[in-house]
Amino acid sequence: MNPCVPLVIPEVNAEHLELAHRQRQEKGWRGGLVTNPNCATVGLAMALGALRPFVPRRVVVTTFQALSGAGYPGVASLDAAANVIPFIQGEEEKLETETQKILGTLEGGAVRAHGVTISAQTTRVPVLDGHTEAVSVELSETPTREELLEAFARFSGEPQSLGLPSAPRRPIVVHERADRPQPRLDVESHGGMAVHVGRVRPCPVLGWKFVLLSHNMVRGAAGAALLNAELLVARGLVGRARERKFAAAGRH
Amino acid sequence: MNPCVPLVIPEVNAEHLELAHRQRQEKGWRGGLVTNPNCATVGLAMALGALRPFVPRRVVVTTFQALSGAGYPGVASLDAAANVIPFIQGEEEKLETETQKILGTLEGGAVRAHGVTISAQTTRVPVLDGHTEAVSVELSETPTREELLEAFARFSGEPQSLGLPSAPRRPIVVHERADRPQPRLDVESHGGMAVHVGRVRPCPVLGWKFVLLSHNMVRGAAGAALLNAELLVARGLVGRARERKFAAAGRH
Amino acid sequence: MNPCVPLVIPEVNAEHLELAHRQRQEKGWRGGLVTNPNCATVGLAMALGALRPFVPRRVVVTTFQALSGAGYPGVASLDAAANVIPFIQGEEEKLETETQKILGTLEGGAVRAHGVTISAQTTRVPVLDGHTEAVSVELSETPTREELLEAFARFSGEPQSLGLPSAPRRPIVVHERADRPQPRLDVESHGGMAVHVGRVRPCPVLGWKFVLLSHNMVRGAAGAALLNAELLVARGLVGRARERKFAAAGRH
Amino acid sequence: MNPCVPLVIPEVNAEHLELAHRQRQEKGWRGGLVTNPNCATVGLAMALGALRPFVPRRVVVTTFQALSGAGYPGVASLDAAANVIPFIQGEEEKLETETQKILGTLEGGAVRAHGVTISAQTTRVPVLDGHTEAVSVELSETPTREELLEAFARFSGEPQSLGLPSAPRRPIVVHERADRPQPRLDVESHGGMAVHVGRVRPCPVLGWKFVLLSHNMVRGAAGAALLNAELLVARGLVGRARERKFAAAGRH
Repeated sequence: MNPCVPLVIPEVNAEHLELAHRQRQEKGWRGGLVTNPNCATVGLAMALGALRPFVPRRVVVTTFQALSGAGYPGVASLDAAANVIPFIQGEEEKLETETQKILGTLEGGAVRAHGVTISAQTTRVPVLDGHTEAVSVELSETPTREELLEAFARFSGEPQSLGLPSAPRRPIVVHERADRPQPRLDVESHGGMAVHVGRVRPCPVLGWKFVLLSHNMVRGAAGAALLNAELLVARGLVGRARERKFAAAGRH
Repeated sequence: MNPCVPLVIPEVNAEHLELAHRQRQEKGWRGGLVTNPNCATVGLAMALGALRPFVPRRVVVTTFQALSGAGYPGVASLDAAANVIPFIQGEEEKLETETQKILGTLEGGAVRAHGVTISAQTTRVPVLDGHTEAVSVELSETPTREELLEAFARFSGEPQSLGLPSAPRRPIVVHERADRPQPRLDVESHGGMAVHVGRVRPCPVLGWKFVLLSHNMVRGAAGAALLNAELLVARGLVGRARERKFAAAGRH
Repeated sequence: MNPCVPLVIPEVNAEHLELAHRQRQEKGWRGGLVTNPNCATVGLAMALGALRPFVPRRVVVTTFQALSGAGYPGVASLDAAANVIPFIQGEEEKLETETQKILGTLEGGAVRAHGVTISAQTTRVPVLDGHTEAVSVELSETPTREELLEAFARFSGEPQSLGLPSAPRRPIVVHERADRPQPRLDVESHGGMAVHVGRVRPCPVLGWKFVLLSHNMVRGAAGAALLNAELLVARGLVGRARERKFAAAGRH
Repeated sequence: MNPCVPLVIPEVNAEHLELAHRQRQEKGWRGGLVTNPNCATVGLAMALGALRPFVPRRVVVTTFQALSGAGYPGVASLDAAANVIPFIQGEEEKLETETQKILGTLEGGAVRAHGVTISAQTTRVPVLDGHTEAVSVELSETPTREELLEAFARFSGEPQSLGLPSAPRRPIVVHERADRPQPRLDVESHGGMAVHVGRVRPCPVLGWKFVLLSHNMVRGAAGAALLNAELLVARGLVGRARERKFAAAGRH
């Protein structure tokens, strides 16, 4: 969360990588720090990224997080089996603040956090891989359901335009069956790199609600770091090209 | 949901039993219909019943419902194992409208639904017994956290004042440990008749949020019907006393 | 497994408590060591105890052991969920040798192990409480199925004749339904102190086979120690009576 | 189990396909019936197939069968969750008799069942895919442990020598880690077409014991049928070549 360290989801805020230059200047580093978000943040930030044209204002989100999200040995089987644990240390704060930073804009060499207010309740459920999230969102704009579905389905970013090796063809997969997405059935599709969105429907309190699913071990961990690395290489911030690029950048 | 059929949680709306008289008059019945709510409604309606002094205005709730709530054979094990199913047919509507009816007031021989707006996302999780619900609520009043905890902990109703056999001593058990309530650890306590509330804390979107747990097979099914029956007997609406009571009531 | 330490299941080998006297003499102790068996041994030793009149000769047993048998935190949920772990450190040896000792006879102040040969394969399965065991047994005698069922059902010992507080009325409950016993349905019955036996039928290799279930946390742990303690008190080996008894015993 | 219908595991008894000719003669069929075994039989028959040089005499086997083996909807989640169901209708008989037929020899145009005696206890456990089996086996020969391991590891058959598309390179994968194979970790390897064998060690009752795992949905179902079909094509019993082959065969 350091202001000069970019927290990047390539489809959402690739431009935050510019902070790497500021790091070099401020810290005198040759390399740089680029981070990927918490495993539960990725799905939400990607979905809200797709809704950015409609200006998300307030979000209430409840998560159903997989056991693998706790690492190994992680949760004791006696705690996890046939149970819901309604608390994950530090997770709600990360989900609320990381998402604001990722959706934020670069202003004067720093990230200005997005103004969306997020309230998270995070839980652990006996699922192996895949974080499910039930989301209600209030938007400043008033899109129709079709416009929302189209915003999710057409969402795309630099990984797609650059054709990065680990990029899913569509970052968000929209489901129309009422009982999907489900972690067991959907989480491994698209190499675990897509976010699944389903049950898009009106929310009588905040406007719209939906369910999302993302793979916490792929899109929320190793795959996120990999896609970031591929983006850094493509943008010339890592690899031989980096020397030239950074040298050039340094001149300004 | 028929306007002359009371939907009763004895601690919350025992006075709705008066509708039984209207049934007798309108339908010419000697007996009557008194119903208990959907298994996921009970916990929410009880919690909001305790918060009625602060006037709940808007609620966003996400449920984690146990397998036993689907009856037998219910959910196929291949669907349920290590999975979250983000849809239960008709459940969200019930949760939204039944709660309004239960919290409503009797006016002119009919229930006037409470004005609270509820948005529910209901899911099935691999838990045996016990529905967990993550709730965010907006209140018209501005209680402190201590006042909220006290409202939950002191909540009480006719089953308690009448000492009905199946009544829990405290209808709502407040938990202070961050990782409670949990279905596996808490659902069977108090004979399965108490609602468990924990993690009461501010919600940056709606004001307050908390987690609740109730036993879908006891408080949400057989135990609910039993407590209703005990209340009917105690009020003289069932049993020998009923004859006299109804006879007396009939005179007015 | 020390030869002067009795390993006791009160229904099977209460007489081994005599070793406590030998301990006092050999070690000069005022107290004594009495142990209860491994959680997976109890069910097998009890079932074979009931079959002792038919002289068990060889046994092949495969266990399905509950997560709680590994203590806390025990097995990681990522290992346990939807899995079978075909190995439990040291468990097979305990099952094979403890059972021989428990079924053994006191000879010359020491336990002479029973001659039954046991081959165990022990596994961990995602069950909360209750060890299931699939047993094939070769007997020296040739009882009928009815005689076997009767031997199980009528099996009884000192806890029953002395009416010890924690003793189940029947140490072995015989099930006739083909799909029983099951840990989820049967393990808590009889206060968790009975061993459940079902599917008694011919084994084309060893003669007879059956399935047993016992509660690893009650009959296989705390309840076992408690019943041993109750037996020690009843026999005057613990408590005020012990002083007199041991004093008297010392004179011989 | 009809004597003129081959029950085929291509690595074990490809030669039984000759029965297809008998079918054509006896029934006057142009096509033919070739079946693949029960999902729990495959692993055992393959492992015993590898041990055929040592002449298996008696086998005691206990199975831990996955939920997917029961089809869909199959086992109710309320039965399956955190439970062991010690009975599967008809399964033990199939395991005992199918294995004898598969290991049998063709004599005079019919299968003469192998003389091995098998005693099976079959159970359902909360695993998604993969049947685990704990096996004790008595052999007529007296191989060393190394000879057994080699027999498993070098086992190979027509699918391998013909290079059939769905054939695993090694039909049996030998594990040396004490806690393997495990369904969650191993069942999907080798495309689900290999049988995993581990924990090979002496059995004090029957001589040797081990644990095996096979994928009930792949090697035990669709993959088995596919490999049979590939073998039929390769042998010219199906496809254009069949016409010639059968025509030729008919002349003899």
